[in-house]
Amino acid sequence: MRLTILTLVIFSATLSAQWFSKPKPVVLNLMPIPQHIELKSGAFRVTDDFSLGVTGRTHNRIYGGADRFLQRLSGRTGLFFTQGFLNEKTTPTEGKLIIRVQRPGEVKLGEDESYELTISRKGIVLEAHTDLGALHGLETLLQLLSVDGEGYYFPAIQINDHPQYPWRGLLIDVCRHWHPMDVIKRNLDGMAAVKLNVLHFHLSEDQGFRVESKIFPELTEKGSDGNYFTQTQIREIIQYADDRGIRVVPEFDMPGHTTALLTARPDLASAPGPYDIERKFGVFDPTIDPTQESTYAFMEKFWGEMAALFPDEYMHIGGDENNGKQWDANPRIQAFKDSMDLADNHALQRYFNTRVLEILTKNGKKMMGWDEIFQPDLPKNIVIQSWRGRKALIDAARQGYQGILSNGYYIDLCYPTSDHYLNFPIAPDADLTPDERARILGGEATMWAELVTPETIDSRIWPRTAAIAERFWSAPEVNDVDDMYRRLERVSVQLEELGLTHEKNYPMMLRRLTNHQDITALQTLVDVLEPVKGYTRHRYATYTSHSPLTHVVDAARPDAVVAREFRNLVDAYLENPVEGVTQTAIIQRLIRWESNHARLKTTIAGSPVLKEVESLSADLSHASTVGRDALAYLALCEAPDSSWTEVSHQVLEAAKQPHAAVEIIVVSAIEKLVNAAERVKS
Amino acid sequence: MRLTILTLVIFSATLSAQWFSKPKPVVLNLMPIPQHIELKSGAFRVTDDFSLGVTGRTHNRIYGGADRFLQRLSGRTGLFFTQGFLNEKTTPTEGKLIIRVQRPGEVKLGEDESYELTISRKGIVLEAHTDLGALHGLETLLQLLSVDGEGYYFPAIQINDHPQYPWRGLLIDVCRHWHPMDVIKRNLDGMAAVKLNVLHFHLSEDQGFRVESKIFPELTEKGSDGNYFTQTQIREIIQYADDRGIRVVPEFDMPGHTTALLTARPDLASAPGPYDIERKFGVFDPTIDPTQESTYAFMEKFWGEMAALFPDEYMHIGGDENNGKQWDANPRIQAFKDSMDLADNHALQRYFNTRVLEILTKNGKKMMGWDEIFQPDLPKNIVIQSWRGRKALIDAARQGYQGILSNGYYIDLCYPTSDHYLNFPIAPDADLTPDERARILGGEATMWAELVTPETIDSRIWPRTAAIAERFWSAPEVNDVDDMYRRLERVSVQLEELGLTHEKNYPMMLRRLTNHQDITALQTLVDVLEPVKGYTRHRYATYTSHSPLTHVVDAARPDAVVAREFRNLVDAYLENPVEGVTQTAIIQRLIRWESNHARLKTTIAGSPVLKEVESLSADLSHASTVGRDALAYLALCEAPDSSWTEVSHQVLEAAKQPHAAVEIIVVSAIEKLVNAAERVKS
Repeated sequence: MRLTILTLVIFSATLSAQWFSKPKPVVLNLMPIPQHIELKSGAFRVTDDFSLGVTGRTHNRIYGGADRFLQRLSGRTGLFFTQGFLNEKTTPTEGKLIIRVQRPGEVKLGEDESYELTISRKGIVLEAHTDLGALHGLETLLQLLSVDGEGYYFPAIQINDHPQYPWRGLLIDVCRHWHPMDVIKRNLDGMAAVKLNVLHFHLSEDQGFRVESKIFPELTEKGSDGNYFTQTQIREIIQYADDRGIRVVPEFDMPGHTTALLTARPDLASAPGPYDIERKFGVFDPTIDPTQESTYAFMEKFWGEMAALFPDEYMHIGGDENNGKQWDANPRIQAFKDSMDLADNHALQRYFNTRVLEILTKNGKKMMGWDEIFQPDLPKNIVIQSWRGRKALIDAARQGYQGILSNGYYIDLCYPTSDHYLNFPIAPDADLTPDERARILGGEATMWAELVTPETIDSRIWPRTAAIAERFWSAPEVNDVDDMYRRLERVSVQLEELGLTHEKNYPMMLRRLTNHQDITALQTLVDVLEPVKGYTRHRYATYTSHSPLTHVVDAARPDAVVAREFRNLVDAYLENPVEGVTQTAIIQRLIRWESNHARLKTTIAGSPVLKEVESLSADLSHASTVGRDALAYLALCEAPDSSWTEVSHQVLEAAKQPHAAVEIIVVSAIEKLVNAAERVKS
Repeated sequence: MRLTILTLVIFSATLSAQWFSKPKPVVLNLMPIPQHIELKSGAFRVTDDFSLGVTGRTHNRIYGGADRFLQRLSGRTGLFFTQGFLNEKTTPTEGKLIIRVQRPGEVKLGEDESYELTISRKGIVLEAHTDLGALHGLETLLQLLSVDGEGYYFPAIQINDHPQYPWRGLLIDVCRHWHPMDVIKRNLDGMAAVKLNVLHFHLSEDQGFRVESKIFPELTEKGSDGNYFTQTQIREIIQYADDRGIRVVPEFDMPGHTTALLTARPDLASAPGPYDIERKFGVFDPTIDPTQESTYAFMEKFWGEMAALFPDEYMHIGGDENNGKQWDANPRIQAFKDSMDLADNHALQRYFNTRVLEILTKNGKKMMGWDEIFQPDLPKNIVIQSWRGRKALIDAARQGYQGILSNGYYIDLCYPTSDHYLNFPIAPDADLTPDERARILGGEATMWAELVTPETIDSRIWPRTAAIAERFWSAPEVNDVDDMYRRLERVSVQLEELGLTHEKNYPMMLRRLTNHQDITALQTLVDVLEPVKGYTRHRYATYTSHSPLTHVVDAARPDAVVAREFRNLVDAYLENPVEGVTQTAIIQRLIRWESNHARLKTTIAGSPVLKEVESLSADLSHASTVGRDALAYLALCEAPDSSWTEVSHQVLEAAKQPHAAVEIIVVSAIEKLVNAAERVKS
């Protein structure tokens, strides 16, 4: 890999000065950033005579990919192309864009995903070893679409690209809350757009068992509330994913996290039961009995059936968070443990895992599980998924085991994008041999679903997961946070054309929250709120799988754009505190927030569900007043007196306190202004 | 039926003065308006101890309905209820809301859909003969949710309700453009919310054959581009509809509109073929050969298979727009016609229909078709669907035939809601006997899909179809257009909670149209644009089934709210042309539109697809200047000179001209101001 660039704006701005006669620099908006880019002189004009052709020996998934490419290009430009409904028969071998594929790709770990994209004035050539690489190249091409006074064009460019890691995943939990077909499909489209290649499908949990078993129909009859995928639907999802070059890795979590399974099959549990589908969230007692041979008779049939249903070579057995209570309380299980010379519950779980591993191996599958499954005597082809941390992964790699990182990519916890972005599967300074490095296969963002519904899930996945996708695809030297955010905002809008709802459900939820009133005042507030981070939201209410996720905290989005812009303005101003557009922009915002409370109170009066944010709205108003004062002191170079300082800090402290599971996210920036004002010497 | 009210605001305002001590009058927002409403004193408070119970002999679809009701109530109020995942086992017989059902309903034409809803301070009782009526009552109850200083409540009320017409349908064409499962499901939810009870599923066309046949798999293999419903999916849709009390009536259009079918089966055509799936729109030549016995062998099997798949007693054979060209050109067909003593193509089509009717009858089905199928010797249990007009329906009713009206409900043509709203299946002054009246079963809105994609279809169906639903459900005396619009805006927002995208895809499409720039200026323009009406849009481009439907005309919505508000302001001002809030509101809008062009030009410079509306934007600006001048003349009571008048009318004439298939919809209101200014005597 030859890395030409660190941030794309600087790169292209520099090059454009060199290569282009155009006055405007070419700003590329690629995400993930390719491994090698060379901007050339000139542009390929996109007009309604655009056409494409496919040559070489390819899998037919390229035709669907090319057809979707054409639709999206046509949708963005409004151009009426003559081509449409492309398939193997209708697609020519010639065109303005030539897609050249050497061999049919296989949707499996380690497949060649590289591509080479060459755009010149005369035409576009996309070359790839496999159609999977070509699909990635089409996504890159769409991101290159540019405009000038003449119309639409692709800049002349040479891109050679391949992924940094072969395993680039998104886990979707369809158990804690049910997420039907359309949620999965639109997110597969989003994944393909940012070159993710693994859908980790979390399919069984305490709160639901979500896949039809023909052998054990009771699993969904009793364990799913009717919310599950039929095998036909699973095949449809796998096909949809395969069409986009995405693997589907199923996870059936065991021996813990199995309340729903044991609701249907209490005979497999470590305590008598009966069980009911769990409605709350957390770690629960029901655990599969690892000592009965009937358990393994079930496992043989169940995993055998699922191994046939899911074509990927990896199957995930979960294995996390078994609290051991049922095992401790069952004398028969304790006796078994002693008789087998198993030191503790961990050893007993290892025994269980080994038995399941045998079944998977017999079915031609490789095993995958969370940190807890790791044990020294496992075969070297298993994959450890680390939710605990990077260290566990490195330790495993040193012992010859493959792993992927999820620690640091828990998107359900509402941390800012930058945290995930700067979390590397292999730390830049990691002391690993090339072989050890190769064992760290990549990572997965995890969309756990305790607190998301089909209405809100996209807003937790996107756009932040696009930055995580870049972390998995691009070189580690691609690490400019500001440039990432610049590109992320554009990608976010592009993702909407795939049906994703992360942007458009925001005002929709505000409309419901205001009870059909004007949303302006509410949006002004929620624009600067973020959900509380980590697991703290559970302190604000006892959530169940039928709690309303329609509150302000659900409408609020992680990494609020308006708040980030404000923080950047404040930083810019404090670096150069003079009168000017930056100062004006800060004042405008502060005035808006200050006066917003009076307007919002009217809205709240018409919508009781908003009462919970009334004090936050007042806090924002007061903090904004403090910010305006601080700016005035700074502008006048006048030192504030100590009583102002004291009161200001009290106001800011109050404004920092979360309410209703949301926090005002601009307070720290206002505090910077106050601190700067304090430093003014009178 | 005893009709208490004409418009609901007046009614409730009057009553509230009489019954309520509260300062605020109760304004009901029901749509469709029930047949009988009696407001009482007091309110039932909705708090987190809300609960419901079901008693009586009911079909189990009520439990799903009750569960969805709870979720939506919880979603709107943010209240955490203890109940969730209701089913036959988990639902008690007691609760704050008691749902009492006398017998299981059947989802079929003519089933009892009445209900009685009694809300008092102490509790709510919903009684119905069938669970179908109870489902309607739950929708009414949700629409009654109100707020005051204390929180959420339902006003004390007595409602007795039943539909005006038993057939209240929405046709969705999934052929001209493909609309997958999620589009159908969310629209079924929308239909249920406004008490529609028939999904007319238009499943075969020149552009696609959309249902799997196990007997003739070639129909979708060759005639669908892979876009079709499997039989499993059809069953899923029928179940989903049945759960909501909605019938599914399938239409397989024949003998014309069959290019896709004949692409798969050219042996059934009236000319040799081969055929290709049609990509353009209009009336095409390919027509089934009605003279071959092999045609009827096919029909026997095909209709037999579909009769088993679709449980409704009605099946729709289409029968419209057969241009007869292939028949005229085929000597064998002409010879057959002569030999059978069939006078013309109409007679030949009657022969075809009669043969198909025999097959349907044998399968226990009743036949339905468009106007063209009507012929005097048909059995009296068929249903005629009139796209041509009300007269045809009345004529048929007089001859003893049943019919439904679609003429006047063509929502694809982008006419204003009021046009549809005041279009009655039976004209108020119709001279019909009670028996004849009873034969006019209702009507159907028709969502033909030449110019809609899954992204835009909801914006053509909703919210206008809610007003059509009221026309089908409510008494004809419910006809206050202003009050309809008031309620429609609220219903429109409520429909969003069902996943419908008619509101939220508007800014999303503007974001794509601006090429990620700020959408404010574009939205200011598009807010006062409407798509051209009727079939005129086809003059602006040759559309195919893969044309981009992402232009301004696709984002623009029929019956633009902002434009209607402006027209109302102008009417109010001209009735009482004094200085005041109305005048100010008009001036503010005119200033905004006048100055918008300069801002929008910047946006257009960054997004070539918007070039097509640049002249419209300029026209709006000029027309607004004219409007401001006119207001000034009126305010000063000064007569304009004739040169101003002349130029103004030229400006307005120019602004009336559609461009890019959209028209500025506020010009007529500005013209009223100009005309009024002209009448000022100097």
